[in-house]
Amino acid sequence: MSAWILPDHIADVLPREALHIERLRRDLLNTARSYGFELVIPPLLEHLSSLLSGAGQALDLKTFKLVDQMSGRMMGLRADTTPQVARMDAHLLNRPGVTRLCYCGPVLHTSPGSPHATREPLQLGAEVYGHTGLLADLEVLTLATDCLRVAHVPSFCVDLADARLVKALLAGVPLSAERTAALHQALASKDRAELLALTRHLPASVRQGLLVLVEMYGDAQVLREAQKFLPGLIDRIDRIDVHEVLQDLNQVVNHLQSIKVHRDIDMDMDVSIDLADLHGYAYYTGVSFAVYVPGVCDALVRGGRYDEVGAVFGRSRPAAGFSLDLKSLVGVTPPPPVPTAICAPWSEDVALNAAIAALRASGQVVVCVPSGQAGDVDGFDCKHTLLKVDGQWVVS
Amino acid sequence: MSAWILPDHIADVLPREALHIERLRRDLLNTARSYGFELVIPPLLEHLSSLLSGAGQALDLKTFKLVDQMSGRMMGLRADTTPQVARMDAHLLNRPGVTRLCYCGPVLHTSPGSPHATREPLQLGAEVYGHTGLLADLEVLTLATDCLRVAHVPSFCVDLADARLVKALLAGVPLSAERTAALHQALASKDRAELLALTRHLPASVRQGLLVLVEMYGDAQVLREAQKFLPGLIDRIDRIDVHEVLQDLNQVVNHLQSIKVHRDIDMDMDVSIDLADLHGYAYYTGVSFAVYVPGVCDALVRGGRYDEVGAVFGRSRPAAGFSLDLKSLVGVTPPPPVPTAICAPWSEDVALNAAIAALRASGQVVVCVPSGQAGDVDGFDCKHTLLKVDGQWVVS
Repeated sequence: MSAWILPDHIADVLPREALHIERLRRDLLNTARSYGFELVIPPLLEHLSSLLSGAGQALDLKTFKLVDQMSGRMMGLRADTTPQVARMDAHLLNRPGVTRLCYCGPVLHTSPGSPHATREPLQLGAEVYGHTGLLADLEVLTLATDCLRVAHVPSFCVDLADARLVKALLAGVPLSAERTAALHQALASKDRAELLALTRHLPASVRQGLLVLVEMYGDAQVLREAQKFLPGLIDRIDRIDVHEVLQDLNQVVNHLQSIKVHRDIDMDMDVSIDLADLHGYAYYTGVSFAVYVPGVCDALVRGGRYDEVGAVFGRSRPAAGFSLDLKSLVGVTPPPPVPTAICAPWSEDVALNAAIAALRASGQVVVCVPSGQAGDVDGFDCKHTLLKVDGQWVVS
Repeated sequence: MSAWILPDHIADVLPREALHIERLRRDLLNTARSYGFELVIPPLLEHLSSLLSGAGQALDLKTFKLVDQMSGRMMGLRADTTPQVARMDAHLLNRPGVTRLCYCGPVLHTSPGSPHATREPLQLGAEVYGHTGLLADLEVLTLATDCLRVAHVPSFCVDLADARLVKALLAGVPLSAERTAALHQALASKDRAELLALTRHLPASVRQGLLVLVEMYGDAQVLREAQKFLPGLIDRIDRIDVHEVLQDLNQVVNHLQSIKVHRDIDMDMDVSIDLADLHGYAYYTGVSFAVYVPGVCDALVRGGRYDEVGAVFGRSRPAAGFSLDLKSLVGVTPPPPVPTAICAPWSEDVALNAAIAALRASGQVVVCVPSGQAGDVDGFDCKHTLLKVDGQWVVS
């Protein structure tokens, strides 16, 4: 096999796209910074037990494993940065108040998440720790939409869900792992017939609750429907106040609408709700959201509240956050224009090199072209040339 | 073992240092860009055969290996980015003229390069492809010193070497691998007695050449000494013009001195020469350089000419470049000041949030503080507060 062939779902990023990614990386990290999110850089490799502690089987399967020759222990390559940042908040920083952290770096997956996905996403994300209130959820959602605005994503839809409802309905119901998986599948695919068959032997109130929930998707109107029907099933919703869940979702919808109205933003944002959505079921403990753009199957952004994520590191702190893949984001945002440059001769002429150094120090790109090569420079639009006129080097 | 313990020589980068690294990353990539270097992002994982093709045993030992579950083939985590960028130049870009590429990303090592080194350096580098002349060597050296200037490294020494001389002297001499390794060791440690013992059975001219070379280290004066003694041994220097090698080194020294004189730079740069230096012996094909800072054993920057690096990818292109580790660089450069921010109340007040959004859009950092938390915000110097005065939100 030729030495230049890459593994499947692994790719080089060439100059044009790398420039685009780098611009987005800076703009998004700057945006997070403007909210007070501090950058951290967790390692690519950790002991497998740390990387996977508290994580579900899905993350385990996604994680590349290798042996540490220094210790003989198993290590993993991070497949998700969120648990690492939770570890840093819980153990290393150990601050009493609210902590806001953000990150940007590659993650690796043993198999692609979807048929066209990369196995090496460039994950960028932000997390608020230490605040139980909905303000933290709203802040990360605002930041996520702000990132999409800064990235010039022209049109997107925010899907809202809350795993607490399904979780509460199924709490205490004895179900095999297979039956649970089948139920989740039926709920996710809105398969009412399958749901009827699967819930035949469940308590009537649970069955009825699930059959109501599976219909609860669509626009904000869904929340009013839910308010009508769900509280009747409240006796089954163990330790969770269904009113509070619906009120949280209502506030999130209002907040998104206020962002849309109050900001002078040229973006087309829709909001939809799916109360039977189960993505990240094991993970989220409150409102969760996913952002979709027209024509792309996979969610561009995923986030929500996951209060248990730091627990295995000895400090269970409330947490809300989101992440996205910059390599996916470049696919739905307009590329930056070809950058301009000044072409200059390439020689050891001292005056020429002093002129070039001054131009570069002033923020200009000056590309030296060997005498044999034409004025064309790949990757740059050479609008200007450095020429010697009357013994002086001038840009023309 | 506690879940938060990291493998040896693997560490989290906390906010203060991460901010410093991010500043350097941007400043250095901007500097490379001002020379016309285009950013590329090669993957972290490749087929092992591609990663190691043409590389020496040292890189093999440094490279983490794992199995690709999709293909059953062995993959490696990059331990050095240079061969990947050469592959991109040779195969993907395939441009006829000069190509300038730069990169910045993590590399992973199975064992640390020195007792205090990280196993996850953040490698930043730049390469010029397609130019055989010394102008390319001088450009990458200029860029390397410019990067150190931009990073505010106050004082450093550029060590120059050229593997061609030792290589040429030993060409055609039948030597076992062990004997060669012992010779290299003796040359590197300037062990004249050991060298005398090891070269007893070598042809007199080779012996004499090696004994002369091992003395050729020090300041620029060394080149004048070499000019006196080395050409007498020229009959042994197979296919290489010793005058040309020394002239190249002379030009590099002059160039560095002209940088020092002509640029208005507040930096203390020394130049030293070691003609028996063998670092990267298998790799470099011309002038090579290493930059050291006082008090640090490991080189901060390494670079030079390596014309064969793309050969295994079907296109042997002349190449010159350098790389450095941003995690090492932060250790020898002054940290950025603690960034300032505006503290604001955290609420769903519409007017407050509009004021905050406007401040953020204007480039300010506004951190929302929950009502229970004091005005202190970790990581920021909250010089100002957003307050409601006469019904208006104002910064005070």
